[in-house]
Amino acid sequence: MLSVSVLTDPGFCPHSLNKYASIMACGNGYMGIRAAHEEDYTQQTRGMYLAGLYHQAGRNETTELINLPDITGIEVELDGVNYTLLAGDILEWQRELAFANGELHRRVVWRSPNGKRYRLESRRFVSLDQLPLVAMQLAITPLDDASQVVMKTGIDATQTNTGRQHLDEISVRVFDQHYMQGVYETQDRAADVVISAFCQLSADSESCFTAKNRRLSAHYSLTIPKGDTVTLDKFVWVVHRSDKALSQESFARGALADLKVCAARGYASLLESSACAWEDVWRDARVEVASASPDDQMALDYAVWHLTTMTPAHDERSSIAAKGLTGEGYKGHVFWDTEIFLLPFHLFTRPQVARSLLRYRWLNLAGAREKARRNGWPGALFPWESAASGKEETPEFAAINIRTGMRQKVASALAEHHIVADIAWAVVAYWQATRDDAFMRNEGLTLLVETATFWMGRATEVNGRLEIHDVIGPDEYTEHVNNNAYTNYLAWHNVASACRFISMFEREEACFMEKATTFLARLWLPEADAGGVIPQDDSFMAKPAIDLSRYKAKAGKQTILLDYSRAEVNEMQILKQADVVMLNYLLPEKFTPAQCAANLAFYEPRTIHDSSLSKAIHGIVAARCGDTEGAYAFWRAGVAIDLGDDPHSSDDGIHAAATGAIWSGVIQGFAGMQIVEGELHLAPKLPAHWRKLAFPLRWQNARLRFTFENDVLTLDTSAPVTLTLWGKTVCVSERQAFSRREFLTSFNGTATTEASDEA
Amino acid sequence: MLSVSVLTDPGFCPHSLNKYASIMACGNGYMGIRAAHEEDYTQQTRGMYLAGLYHQAGRNETTELINLPDITGIEVELDGVNYTLLAGDILEWQRELAFANGELHRRVVWRSPNGKRYRLESRRFVSLDQLPLVAMQLAITPLDDASQVVMKTGIDATQTNTGRQHLDEISVRVFDQHYMQGVYETQDRAADVVISAFCQLSADSESCFTAKNRRLSAHYSLTIPKGDTVTLDKFVWVVHRSDKALSQESFARGALADLKVCAARGYASLLESSACAWEDVWRDARVEVASASPDDQMALDYAVWHLTTMTPAHDERSSIAAKGLTGEGYKGHVFWDTEIFLLPFHLFTRPQVARSLLRYRWLNLAGAREKARRNGWPGALFPWESAASGKEETPEFAAINIRTGMRQKVASALAEHHIVADIAWAVVAYWQATRDDAFMRNEGLTLLVETATFWMGRATEVNGRLEIHDVIGPDEYTEHVNNNAYTNYLAWHNVASACRFISMFEREEACFMEKATTFLARLWLPEADAGGVIPQDDSFMAKPAIDLSRYKAKAGKQTILLDYSRAEVNEMQILKQADVVMLNYLLPEKFTPAQCAANLAFYEPRTIHDSSLSKAIHGIVAARCGDTEGAYAFWRAGVAIDLGDDPHSSDDGIHAAATGAIWSGVIQGFAGMQIVEGELHLAPKLPAHWRKLAFPLRWQNARLRFTFENDVLTLDTSAPVTLTLWGKTVCVSERQAFSRREFLTSFNGTATTEASDEA
Repeated sequence: MLSVSVLTDPGFCPHSLNKYASIMACGNGYMGIRAAHEEDYTQQTRGMYLAGLYHQAGRNETTELINLPDITGIEVELDGVNYTLLAGDILEWQRELAFANGELHRRVVWRSPNGKRYRLESRRFVSLDQLPLVAMQLAITPLDDASQVVMKTGIDATQTNTGRQHLDEISVRVFDQHYMQGVYETQDRAADVVISAFCQLSADSESCFTAKNRRLSAHYSLTIPKGDTVTLDKFVWVVHRSDKALSQESFARGALADLKVCAARGYASLLESSACAWEDVWRDARVEVASASPDDQMALDYAVWHLTTMTPAHDERSSIAAKGLTGEGYKGHVFWDTEIFLLPFHLFTRPQVARSLLRYRWLNLAGAREKARRNGWPGALFPWESAASGKEETPEFAAINIRTGMRQKVASALAEHHIVADIAWAVVAYWQATRDDAFMRNEGLTLLVETATFWMGRATEVNGRLEIHDVIGPDEYTEHVNNNAYTNYLAWHNVASACRFISMFEREEACFMEKATTFLARLWLPEADAGGVIPQDDSFMAKPAIDLSRYKAKAGKQTILLDYSRAEVNEMQILKQADVVMLNYLLPEKFTPAQCAANLAFYEPRTIHDSSLSKAIHGIVAARCGDTEGAYAFWRAGVAIDLGDDPHSSDDGIHAAATGAIWSGVIQGFAGMQIVEGELHLAPKLPAHWRKLAFPLRWQNARLRFTFENDVLTLDTSAPVTLTLWGKTVCVSERQAFSRREFLTSFNGTATTEASDEA
Repeated sequence: MLSVSVLTDPGFCPHSLNKYASIMACGNGYMGIRAAHEEDYTQQTRGMYLAGLYHQAGRNETTELINLPDITGIEVELDGVNYTLLAGDILEWQRELAFANGELHRRVVWRSPNGKRYRLESRRFVSLDQLPLVAMQLAITPLDDASQVVMKTGIDATQTNTGRQHLDEISVRVFDQHYMQGVYETQDRAADVVISAFCQLSADSESCFTAKNRRLSAHYSLTIPKGDTVTLDKFVWVVHRSDKALSQESFARGALADLKVCAARGYASLLESSACAWEDVWRDARVEVASASPDDQMALDYAVWHLTTMTPAHDERSSIAAKGLTGEGYKGHVFWDTEIFLLPFHLFTRPQVARSLLRYRWLNLAGAREKARRNGWPGALFPWESAASGKEETPEFAAINIRTGMRQKVASALAEHHIVADIAWAVVAYWQATRDDAFMRNEGLTLLVETATFWMGRATEVNGRLEIHDVIGPDEYTEHVNNNAYTNYLAWHNVASACRFISMFEREEACFMEKATTFLARLWLPEADAGGVIPQDDSFMAKPAIDLSRYKAKAGKQTILLDYSRAEVNEMQILKQADVVMLNYLLPEKFTPAQCAANLAFYEPRTIHDSSLSKAIHGIVAARCGDTEGAYAFWRAGVAIDLGDDPHSSDDGIHAAATGAIWSGVIQGFAGMQIVEGELHLAPKLPAHWRKLAFPLRWQNARLRFTFENDVLTLDTSAPVTLTLWGKTVCVSERQAFSRREFLTSFNGTATTEASDEA
């Protein structure tokens, strides 16, 4: 395997502090820590989040992922001068996140305003094998003279979510010379958080501990001889609970005992264990490309890194936040992004994680049923934004209009109902990829039936046919329309799937089946016109189109709203993001390649791509339509959402769904993977400057390895697999290689392969 | 009058940011604003407080003065570089607070890291004539080249009290091109805060407003030609209410209307009005000295500045916080400091303010009665720490011991009962200085009787005499003792005063009088030994003494507690602060000069002066004992508490009581003012390097002006006054001058003067 990429922060810059704090964030699905520097900067936002740990800080506030007390900050004073890279000179700079082992490393040689030079080297990782563990090191070397060094670090509970405080400080403690512990409780008393820290210096120093104003700190003061290096080790153990079976004291004591075991091992040993766990991730999920542009490999490693660090694989009561665990954007809520953009990666690399993500929805059915009931519908209406409880977390009102003082009702929670069908789609996709009958029998069928029941209640009879009115499709610039194609087709698929699995698993649901059969027969599915274009909704085709080029040039910034009101935008053919194209992507069996191409050609010029979810989907559909270079351009644009030049695009956290799309863009785009009628299809076709693409893939009971190089596809599989390759069905076992040219020319439509064995 | 001092911040230094933010804080008794720079620094604490606006942020938290949304911050970007004095070079620097008109002014010429020079000049004042008004200006001049300037400022509600959030954001609004308004409510919904801001730039610019994450901001972007100056005016109107009669909308609308009136006037006009109000303050309260050391005048002007800015003269429901309105130390609570250290200044300059401060206690009698009742005593036991409601605000438990995890009960609220008698002492002092019979008849007598009743219940009979057990005197290093001399004498004075005024105002209180007479006859008053030393309490004299010199050298830092536990300190002759000496100071008629000198000589070596209240009192008693140079040394040490070299002594706010002591040290020390048996005494004797001392003084119905120069005391008075001068009674009317030497030699004990008229 080629060595895994190293993400680099090219240089200290006050403007890009938060970009790099987000994209270089460390995590393990349980905990995420922004890559803030040890020293503070006024514009730098620190952040440490635990998956699923939400709280509402006050009236009018939205439930949000709690920004926990900080443990990464270290104040350093060198010969009386505060260490800050704003002052003095940076003589050497190196900062990188090694995806291979998960270590964030910075090495600086700094000339202080007093003229003296110092080397400061810091390392940090969030352990992938011990989820509550963070380990850090800071090494200081005075280069010109013996130096008087003061360091201060600890557990800083002055941290807030931009001024919103969620935690009461219950107790702060110090144990012997090395341990600190803070016990906190959410202000609603529902959850406890215990943060325990071990600090040790490699040299003798004066030290003391203080606790004041929500800051528990260890202070060190020492003289370091010229050229000597003194290292501060800091290991932190972060746990929370909402179950109060154990006393708070016992819970805290247990945390301290766990930390002590880690402290005895030391940084190198802890890193090694974590690195081993990362090795497994890369083995099971890495996508390798040989590209003329090394940024392509970087993007894929970046995606797998964040897809791993954002996903609470350990806890089926949590799902994936829209910014992962890297920032406070979207309040850490869970959207349809999880099922549509993030689940595929897991499904085809770690299917048990996909199962856990679906279990999250199943466990939260009560909230979805309640939302449906409150709105007068049967079944389950999943919340547009979800947190820990499954109830609707979308704020009822949007941010105040500072001009009028009015607050608009948030439309997405009211009408963006496609999320119901998206979840059902994911249930089906999960079963297709795993054949996990046990899941389908229990959670799967319940989810399918409850969601299908919603749609059957949601539809309206108009002149004898069923229609779905007043919805918002994925394209949020077109609100409150009737018969949004995406919604209607997905709802149909939802109900049809419920029927199919009821039959397959021989459930007694006669009444449901009867209603469902009628629904499927009568639900209006917007039809393609002669050119293959499917109308986005009943009114779309009648609206005027305008030239969007200047808005497309600033895609993602919603600049259209500076020139037009939302109401005006709604009355034009302006798409925020893929909608019919999204439909083409999700249900490939429903549409011909010509229809897909027609819809892409019609809708793309009308789409601004103001959502980070848009371009990648266009790229996949373009690739399926044969436009590999066009697909690559879309894919790179998707990569640039976080990894591009904009210093502020990721301030509030990375774009989680966009990282899923980086993976999907390659696997479903250039490798041509599709699941059609439950069957695996592959049709690799690479961009011209890619020589090779290789990745592991889980499909049903097999572990596949896909390698496409020099127009030859080599498949290694742990079990025989039947799949459709470049449109033809083949059976593969062990290792088989297929030369694309030979395959396409020699293959005559039979169901056997002409593959050359390469055992 | 000599021109009023200008307080200077000698240069930008990250270490002293908070010292100068405190000592240069602006205020008007209604509102206080820390002198934080417009640009942020990680170690700089911003603060804006409204007198009496307290709230409890969470469980385990103490009610505290709310740190309000910030309005002083301005982010400036100059040609793409963030303006911060940590980077680049400071070519010119001037920062000063002009006490005369209350304007804080900074002028910096800065060379950016990009090599270009800019002049930035900012001005700010808190209006003394319109209490809710703050006005600011920031002027920017690019010196080398046309410059692209970006400014961002507004109302920033991410502000917290070190992580504790008190306010919910209710609404944020923008009106036309210049006005912003934020409406906030305390989380307990008891109070509303409305902050309205007007911003205007002197040049055209691109501008927009944003509201996100509790920040409401105006953004300006413009090019300034080389050498041109562009000025941003910002006027802010800050109001609060706990009475909800008016709707929140009307209240907010009214605030905006008030601000509009100010905005129409402009900075210069608003400053002029405020400066006029300051002129009155200086006329009525300024103490002038001609000293070889200009720092002496600075100290006195500094004291009057803060004594004015900290005092909520407008609102008898508020009193003076221990750090004034300059920081969060002591949570903004009100202690005995107010009556003993701060009230004298007001009493002799603005007696109606002293009345208001006593009304605060009277209005809060319910809390004091409740505290007494809960502890099983009659009468009123005033809280050791008081906020808006008058209930005890001292946290029940001290900060956690981070080593043991235990929290000790806070002893002062349990046993530091002398505050009851201190308030009674202040009531008597107020009446003596004003002869305000109306007050005494109503509030005064109620306070005296309720407090006296407390003492009569508090005393314990032991072998036929009454003792007061288990108290803490002012010396907090000696806890839970019996018959603390300070407490017993002050309690006696309290009960005796109640009797005296009951008789004087012919109240029917036969039962009280009978009990009180017994109490006064039987209360044990610790007696001076042959040398004149009064034992601090029953056990003190038997305790061992140790050499305290190393702790005295670090007075104020409580370093003794690093070597000894509190329990150990309690068992030695170690005083935190003046106790018997304090008693000598407060009740001069009770002790002979020889006794005062003996107690000073005995106790001072046993006193570390770890309280900021200590040295000044020693200084006054030393001056009264004739040791003027010793007194001056104590006085300077008291001045140094805030104005000395320690860069961190005032981080949490200035020492309010110490500013009162600066005034008292001069008036009651070097001018020799004492009130003995209700009579005014003067006995000026200046330090050798002082040529002159002059100040206004209110006494009963007269406005006096005291001028002592070249050993001649000149008194101007608006009404005839009888007073005791250098021990002899004189009557003064209009202007009279007294040469000390002639006066003392020629005077033969008659009650007439030999003063030379100087009409």
